[in-house]
Amino acid sequence: METETSRVLIDLLLVFAGGKLMGELFERLRQPAVIGELLAGVLIGPGLLGLVKPGAVLSTVATMGVIVLMFVVGLETRPSELFRVGGRAFVVGSVGIVLPLLCGFWFGTAIGAGKPEALFIGTALVATSVGITARVLADRGFLSATEARIILAAAVIDDVLGMLVLSLVVGSTRGAVDVWHIAILLAQVVAFVGFEMWVAPKLVAQHAHWLDRLRIPNAGFVVALIVMLGMAALSETIGLAGIVGAFFAGMMFAETEDRWELTKQAKPLYEWLVPYFFVVTGMQVQPSLFADPKVLVPGLALVAIAVATKVVGCGLGAAGMGWRRMIAIGIGMVPRGEVGLIVASTGLAMGVIGSTTYAMVIFVVVVSTVVVPPLLAVVFPWALAEERVSADDVAAIAESAGLVMAEE
Amino acid sequence: METETSRVLIDLLLVFAGGKLMGELFERLRQPAVIGELLAGVLIGPGLLGLVKPGAVLSTVATMGVIVLMFVVGLETRPSELFRVGGRAFVVGSVGIVLPLLCGFWFGTAIGAGKPEALFIGTALVATSVGITARVLADRGFLSATEARIILAAAVIDDVLGMLVLSLVVGSTRGAVDVWHIAILLAQVVAFVGFEMWVAPKLVAQHAHWLDRLRIPNAGFVVALIVMLGMAALSETIGLAGIVGAFFAGMMFAETEDRWELTKQAKPLYEWLVPYFFVVTGMQVQPSLFADPKVLVPGLALVAIAVATKVVGCGLGAAGMGWRRMIAIGIGMVPRGEVGLIVASTGLAMGVIGSTTYAMVIFVVVVSTVVVPPLLAVVFPWALAEERVSADDVAAIAESAGLVMAEE
Repeated sequence: METETSRVLIDLLLVFAGGKLMGELFERLRQPAVIGELLAGVLIGPGLLGLVKPGAVLSTVATMGVIVLMFVVGLETRPSELFRVGGRAFVVGSVGIVLPLLCGFWFGTAIGAGKPEALFIGTALVATSVGITARVLADRGFLSATEARIILAAAVIDDVLGMLVLSLVVGSTRGAVDVWHIAILLAQVVAFVGFEMWVAPKLVAQHAHWLDRLRIPNAGFVVALIVMLGMAALSETIGLAGIVGAFFAGMMFAETEDRWELTKQAKPLYEWLVPYFFVVTGMQVQPSLFADPKVLVPGLALVAIAVATKVVGCGLGAAGMGWRRMIAIGIGMVPRGEVGLIVASTGLAMGVIGSTTYAMVIFVVVVSTVVVPPLLAVVFPWALAEERVSADDVAAIAESAGLVMAEE
Repeated sequence: METETSRVLIDLLLVFAGGKLMGELFERLRQPAVIGELLAGVLIGPGLLGLVKPGAVLSTVATMGVIVLMFVVGLETRPSELFRVGGRAFVVGSVGIVLPLLCGFWFGTAIGAGKPEALFIGTALVATSVGITARVLADRGFLSATEARIILAAAVIDDVLGMLVLSLVVGSTRGAVDVWHIAILLAQVVAFVGFEMWVAPKLVAQHAHWLDRLRIPNAGFVVALIVMLGMAALSETIGLAGIVGAFFAGMMFAETEDRWELTKQAKPLYEWLVPYFFVVTGMQVQPSLFADPKVLVPGLALVAIAVATKVVGCGLGAAGMGWRRMIAIGIGMVPRGEVGLIVASTGLAMGVIGSTTYAMVIFVVVVSTVVVPPLLAVVFPWALAEERVSADDVAAIAESAGLVMAEE
């Protein structure tokens, strides 16, 4: 007897068990677990076996998962560390937006799309979805590397700029850019980000003792969960991605997380809920897309552009850090995510882009997301190794110059 | 800009924050937090403020919450402790089913319903929903009391018998009881319960070292989560409540939970997800039901019958344990839950019960659930105090008889 509840429970079981099983398999193959989870989604999703149908229910659990993921990433990121890389991240984020936008637009006109449609293609390539990069870096213990900080900060800047670009493109397509509307949006976003970066962490640090004095068992954790949900909702409401808000919420508590064991308590939530996001993402893959040459051929070309422009753009932004790190940062910024889909859906709803272009964008979002974890797993340790090598070099030079004593 | 995701995040926020706030308020009033959570649901639900609409998404999170709740309760219940109270629980569960069934049937005919409709009214009063009792007892640290064990075991028995009664009633209403169908159902349920009680905990205890040898980080917790979802899905599929399966899943790991810190790791899940179940339950309350005298008057009478028959029936089942404990056990068995609603919906779908009777049953389910936590919070400590008093008495008698030495 299959009731509604039993269907939901079976779906929750299949997604979790499938994701963990495949994730473990890929760990054994020395690949990031997240690839296994994505493939589990492709496998059990409607594209192949059709065991589980994605829908509002599973996407909600997936959203809870990615919110928890970015909250945990935020917990490991102190605001001061983000400020330190702020200037660099701004350059990485900005150049990493201009290049995909221009090249996407050029590609659109080259395949014969009108200017508005080409503009939407370019816009869909703009926004980085940092979830998958954050997951790989978190699982491998790389979150505290400077490169990881730069990627996180650049992704936030990227998200803000991407929202502005979308507003401008939608406005210009409609024939009139509503300057006031965009100014208000911008003011909201700047106020939100400014509050989260400068004010909120201090507020939390100063009033932490006040929370403890309430003598509510586990008050810190409960308040942190409320802030996590609140900031995610607020962020989404003012037009940013919900995960940006969840990341900020985590960062607010980064200085006080020890006090309430937040990271420790968030870990079981991470363990249970985060796989849902990646398995459900995998379920969006429609293998039939890969079979249609009208989508596949320009899609593959657009994937190449999407990957190359981010790697080159963000890499250039990181110029001077050594080319291994430039590549690592560039690859970390490659994944496109729900923002690309939102752009494409907006264009579709406005009648500006056609269904083939829409399918092409979905293809790009999926492929650009799936290729990143294995690349990142190789490139990141390799970039950090460069750091160690150069540190060794410095030590060797210092030693040979007689500045320090060699260890006996 | 309200997107689908922002709506979901706002709902998740309002339900959690509202539940925690009201829960804390009631804790301060020395009442169980769960009453605050139920009232928060009434407040923000469609009946009053209408801030949040219940739907498939929120019920899924609520289901995840109650599954986690019963899993945690299971973790604190060793099979041996359940066996010890098994005979007693069987009597409590059985008598606690017969009395509501008969009296509900009698009440139905008394208010002029036909025999089939009256039979459905009686059946709706049968099944105990142990979630709310378990929550109150868990929050107050009473789960290890013998009375709590009896309630848990009796609720399982109750659920099995309730399912059989429903099959019999549906069959007899249709004119033919399908003996084979019921025999198969019964065989499945007996096999499931038997496996969970006798075999599964031993399997886990014997193969725990094998899991550790896999060297998967946190493998115990991941496997426990998979078993939790699997047993809940299986239980629901064979016609029992999903929470019965989750409870058994927890019990399977009760002997090994230290090894993998399962209780500790399940706590944050409990903290976040469990309130959703109770707030969403509160959201089902339609205050308009209380305004319609056609529902209110017989509804109140049926509530009185529902409460009295369980307290008397289950209390009688506990005869000989002292009247305070008899009352405590009886009150713990009062809440009706989703099973009552399933019975009513089945009757409605079969055209056997009318919409007024349906509303009346919803009314009974809601009121019988809401009245229990405050009663339980008073009655349970009072019943356990009796135990201490009589233990003191025994000690005094023993001492005066010279059997033991008085402490100096």
